[in-house]
Amino acid sequence: MTSLFTGLSAFPLTPLADDAVDQRAFAGLVRRLAAAGVDSITALGSTGSYAYLTAEERARVARLAVENADGTPVLVGVGALRTSQVLANVESAGAAGAAGLLLAPMTYQPLTHDDVVELFRAVTAATDLPVIVYDNPGTTRFEFTNELYARIAELPGIASIKIPGVPADPEAAREHVAAIRAVIPEHVTIGVSGDASAATGLNAGCEAWYSVIGGTLPEPALAITRAAQEGRAADAVAKSERLAPLWGLFTEFGGSLRVVAAIAEQLSLAPRGCLPLPIQPLSDDQRTRISGVLDELGLA
Amino acid sequence: MTSLFTGLSAFPLTPLADDAVDQRAFAGLVRRLAAAGVDSITALGSTGSYAYLTAEERARVARLAVENADGTPVLVGVGALRTSQVLANVESAGAAGAAGLLLAPMTYQPLTHDDVVELFRAVTAATDLPVIVYDNPGTTRFEFTNELYARIAELPGIASIKIPGVPADPEAAREHVAAIRAVIPEHVTIGVSGDASAATGLNAGCEAWYSVIGGTLPEPALAITRAAQEGRAADAVAKSERLAPLWGLFTEFGGSLRVVAAIAEQLSLAPRGCLPLPIQPLSDDQRTRISGVLDELGLA
Repeated sequence: MTSLFTGLSAFPLTPLADDAVDQRAFAGLVRRLAAAGVDSITALGSTGSYAYLTAEERARVARLAVENADGTPVLVGVGALRTSQVLANVESAGAAGAAGLLLAPMTYQPLTHDDVVELFRAVTAATDLPVIVYDNPGTTRFEFTNELYARIAELPGIASIKIPGVPADPEAAREHVAAIRAVIPEHVTIGVSGDASAATGLNAGCEAWYSVIGGTLPEPALAITRAAQEGRAADAVAKSERLAPLWGLFTEFGGSLRVVAAIAEQLSLAPRGCLPLPIQPLSDDQRTRISGVLDELGLA
Repeated sequence: MTSLFTGLSAFPLTPLADDAVDQRAFAGLVRRLAAAGVDSITALGSTGSYAYLTAEERARVARLAVENADGTPVLVGVGALRTSQVLANVESAGAAGAAGLLLAPMTYQPLTHDDVVELFRAVTAATDLPVIVYDNPGTTRFEFTNELYARIAELPGIASIKIPGVPADPEAAREHVAAIRAVIPEHVTIGVSGDASAATGLNAGCEAWYSVIGGTLPEPALAITRAAQEGRAADAVAKSERLAPLWGLFTEFGGSLRVVAAIAEQLSLAPRGCLPLPIQPLSDDQRTRISGVLDELGLA
C-alpha cells in the first residue's frame, strides 16, 4: 500500500516578479511536476518561500497548485510565527483542496518543546487533513529530538515527519532512521530532506524524499527515488553522486534555494530575480558556474 | 548634547487578549513609561512581539504609542521577513509620528552580509527617519560582525546600533565597545541590550540601554542608567546586582520575554496569557517563583 506520504514529493519555487507572485510561472512549474509523474507536490515549502508571503498570497498559491496539478496530490505548507496565522493558513489550504499540510515551527522567540507540541495539537485539532511535521533547523532554528518526534507523532492526524539530511555513512544513516522509526507509530512515514543525502536516506529506510531539486528538475530526482524504491540501492547512490557538482554548489552558494532559483531562471521557468528580497539573487559569476554544471550534467 | 539615541529606551510589551492587541493595556504601559521619565519608548521591539503582529496591528500599535507617550520620543520596530513588508511598516511608523525606527534583519532563509546591507540601504533610502541597527542573534539568528556594523553605519540615516549583551568583565566590555566605536561614525550611538549586562555596558561606553525590563519596571532601570550616566559606575553595578534574582529567572525560564510578561500580568498591567501563541505562558510554579522575587526586591 502506497501512502500519500511516500516517494518523491517535489517542492516548487513560488517565483516572484516585482514583489508579486508570478502566477503564470508558478502554474508552469506545477504542471511540469505533474507531467513528470512526481508522487506529490508540496507547495509553499521553504523552497516555495512560504515564510515571506501574506495570507492572501498563500491562499492564492495553494489554489493555483491544486488547479494545475492534474490530480497529483498537493501538500501545502501552513507554517507561520503565530498560531492564529497558522490556523488561517490551514483553513485556506483546506479550501484550496490540499491533500495534506506541512508545518514547521517557525521561530522568532525561541520555542520550548511544549510550545511546539501545543502548536501541533492546535493544528491537528482544527483540521481533518493529515499533517507532516517539518523539521528544518536550518531555517527555523528549532531543534527537534526523537523524544519530541514521539510526542508529536502520537497526535491524531500526524502522517509523516520531514527530517533533515541523514549521516553520509549508510550504516549510520540506517541507525539514525531506525532510532526515529522505533519511537513513532507505524503509520507515520519518515521523509528525508537535504537533497545531497536523499539517496542515502531512502536506502536507509526513509519512505519519502521531500525534495528541493525535485521541484525544478523532477526527472533526476525521480530516477533516484525509483531506484531506491525498487531496491537498487547502489544505483540510487550512483545517480545521486552523478549530481555531486550540483550538491557542491548548494554548499558553496549558501544553500539550495538560491541555486535552485538560479536554475529555474536559467531554464526560463521563472523570471530573473524570483526570490523575495532581502534574499539577493546570485551574482553573474555564480550563475555562469551554475550554467556550466547544468551543461556538464546534461540538465540545461 | 543629548541624542535621541542615548539613555534609557524602554521596550513595552504589546499585550494580547484573545489573540488581539489589548489596546487599553498597551496604552497603560506606555503612559506608565512616559510618567517615569524614560528617555525614549521603543514600541514593537522584540519585547513588543513585533514579529508576530500583522501590518495593521503594527500600524495601530505605533499610533497608540505616540498618542500615549506624552511627548516622550517613540521609536518603532519595523522588521519583517520581506523587504516590501519592512517598507510598509516604515511608512506606517512614520505616519504614526515615530521619532526613529528599529530594524532587525529577521531571517527564515539565512541571510548574507550583502543581503543585510541592501536591506538597510533600502530602508534608509525610503525614509528620513533615523534608524537603529538591531543586532539580536537570539531571535534573528543573524550574526553581525564589526566589519558589517561599519558597512551599515556609514549609510546616511543610521543613528545607533543596538548590540547584544557585553562581556561581564569590565575591561573586556570596554575593549568590546571600543572595537565597535573604532569602526563606526561618531554620530552613531551604541546601545546595549541584554538587561543583566546593561550596567557593565553603560560603564563601558555604551550611550544607550535598549531595555526589556525598563518597559515594565522603568524605575529600577532608570536608576541604573542615571548612575552610569553620572559617572557613578560602582553604584550602577550595585543597583544591577541587586536585581540578580531577576536576571537569574531570565536565564532559568528561557529568556526575558516570558518573565517580563509574567511580571506585567502579576502587576495587573497586562491580561493573563498576554504573549502570542505558540509562546506558552509560564507555569503556576514559575509564576510563584517570580512573585517571590518581586516581593524580595520590593517591586511588587
